[in-house]
Amino acid sequence: MVKANPALADLPLRPELVGEEPYGAPQLDVPVCLNVNENPYPPSGAMLADMAQAISSGVYHRYPDREFLRLRTQLADYLGHGLGPANIWAANGSNEVMTHVLGAFGGPGRRMLTFTPTYSMYPEYARNTHTEYVTAPRRVDYTLDASDILLAIARVEPTVVVITTPNNPTGTTTPVTVIAEVLANTDAIVVVDEAYQEFARDPEATALSLLADHGNLVVSRTMSKAFAFAGGRLGYLAAAPAIVDACRIVRLPYHLSAQTQAVASVALRHADEMLARVDDLRATRDELLRRGPQLGFEVVDSDANFVLIGRWADRHAAWQQLLDQGVLVRETGPEGFLRVSAGTPDEMAAFYAALARVDAPRMGE
Amino acid sequence: MVKANPALADLPLRPELVGEEPYGAPQLDVPVCLNVNENPYPPSGAMLADMAQAISSGVYHRYPDREFLRLRTQLADYLGHGLGPANIWAANGSNEVMTHVLGAFGGPGRRMLTFTPTYSMYPEYARNTHTEYVTAPRRVDYTLDASDILLAIARVEPTVVVITTPNNPTGTTTPVTVIAEVLANTDAIVVVDEAYQEFARDPEATALSLLADHGNLVVSRTMSKAFAFAGGRLGYLAAAPAIVDACRIVRLPYHLSAQTQAVASVALRHADEMLARVDDLRATRDELLRRGPQLGFEVVDSDANFVLIGRWADRHAAWQQLLDQGVLVRETGPEGFLRVSAGTPDEMAAFYAALARVDAPRMGE
Repeated sequence: MVKANPALADLPLRPELVGEEPYGAPQLDVPVCLNVNENPYPPSGAMLADMAQAISSGVYHRYPDREFLRLRTQLADYLGHGLGPANIWAANGSNEVMTHVLGAFGGPGRRMLTFTPTYSMYPEYARNTHTEYVTAPRRVDYTLDASDILLAIARVEPTVVVITTPNNPTGTTTPVTVIAEVLANTDAIVVVDEAYQEFARDPEATALSLLADHGNLVVSRTMSKAFAFAGGRLGYLAAAPAIVDACRIVRLPYHLSAQTQAVASVALRHADEMLARVDDLRATRDELLRRGPQLGFEVVDSDANFVLIGRWADRHAAWQQLLDQGVLVRETGPEGFLRVSAGTPDEMAAFYAALARVDAPRMGE
Repeated sequence: MVKANPALADLPLRPELVGEEPYGAPQLDVPVCLNVNENPYPPSGAMLADMAQAISSGVYHRYPDREFLRLRTQLADYLGHGLGPANIWAANGSNEVMTHVLGAFGGPGRRMLTFTPTYSMYPEYARNTHTEYVTAPRRVDYTLDASDILLAIARVEPTVVVITTPNNPTGTTTPVTVIAEVLANTDAIVVVDEAYQEFARDPEATALSLLADHGNLVVSRTMSKAFAFAGGRLGYLAAAPAIVDACRIVRLPYHLSAQTQAVASVALRHADEMLARVDDLRATRDELLRRGPQLGFEVVDSDANFVLIGRWADRHAAWQQLLDQGVLVRETGPEGFLRVSAGTPDEMAAFYAALARVDAPRMGE
């Protein structure tokens, strides 16, 4: 018998989870949030009204469409490149999409390969699917070429390789030609995570263009970033129909609710409006890339809506000093850097003002 | 290199998934759907208007509250029994809640025990979490007593035991006294799946009353059945805070979208209305339990919103004959039975009329 108010140690928690904390950036109530790479511009009243209309005409007492064909068709149309609904899979955030991919193609006895520094959620996907998580380092400038990737694949023998471009947290793009060369030389599932692709200087230079030739390619996208729909939790992928079928086998039925299908569909109908601020955010990022060095900081060239800036000898102290001034950024990435999302003009003004008052010592000072 | 349009066999699909089909009842466009145990009564216009209002005042460009504390507080208040938000966890359907429980307490090298015939999704949860799925049979009348359960636990040594009451697909209740005796004698996580509890003849006879004394007890509930909110996909559990903490470790962040938190919160505010038809559905079930034998059929006594009726020598033929008349029921459960959900009076009239025309031979005929 287990007593009434047990500690976790009194319960049969899996050993690898003992001492783990729930993943996530601190949820703090702060005036300026530049910490999770959201698009800071809220949707219009017209779009909210359309979402409300879609909700009020929805059906809730019945189970939703398990195949969400309407939404998949809209996502295919949004992506273009000759894709159709059979090429599209979606779930409650890319977290769940990647769990489906690893549930089908990873799992016990298999390995997932990523190139670090990279997105801090990947080890969580591996842990939850019992896939072995193996990394290979990026070059000193955080780029990757095909030989780096192919040598790591030869060494690790993964079933799933993830190439993140633009990469989080560095913002580094991996050229499509590199991805094409990798695909020509591996049978592993190659996931190209393009969560931030819309912010790239050339958004059309996308691995989507390789789908017509490569059946082991998965292009991962999200509505959380450029699309200004982080609250909606809609991640998706484009791939060969066989890969979508594999996701359909491992998904638990009805994973996308009626309300999620309804509001995501409305957001996609308003795609032009949702994406209208992407140019502004690209300019905001470029300004940070320019201004950072002018202010004496090191930055990492970025194709996403965030920039690594530093380097501090104690970045946590710098993070705390910014926070004390009401500006929340993210303590992540290579040693000494902080990651700053592109915000509104007011948010960026607050950030620059706060940054000027940070006196935490820089590296080498 | 993998060619452009591969078959699944050309891809590194996990071997245990080869040949698997996506789970789910057939999605057919049929006038009368009595196949997935939904509450057939749609929400009122007032409730839809409140949901629309909540959606139009929502925030979508920012990530949602990872801890969904407001919703957890409402769920705790709905359940009563002195529970608070620290006792509540929720996800996109009980499918995901159970995946969290098994992710924390099941997994490779561990076993999950259920009592068959029971809910056909359980093996999917085990498969997705790489937990070994082991079953023990119910008695011939589908009941369970404490010695049945404890003997199976001693034999199987599971870390997670699932007792489904009322049981799907049989409708059989396991008394709270039996569950208390099990809890007094095991340290395994005991999940009491009460998805259909509101339909029971005595809904207050719930394992929730045991939570104050047992730290290894999980009571699983859903808004999909009595609550008439299957489209909303909101499953939840009540347990000791340590069990909720374990779920928080394995959940991927932001799993509940802004829109799901918003509409589920509205539905809970309208709980009285959402549950208003439960008495009607209980009466509809009781009529089916009475009328089935009068019409010469065998039925299984049920405390849920469905009834097993049969037995046909070829139940698929009977299922098809009902479907040909526009009535979709579920081909599941013990040999020869079909499972019929309690519908509206019109739906039940259509079912009885169609049943009278079924001429597939009964067992023993």
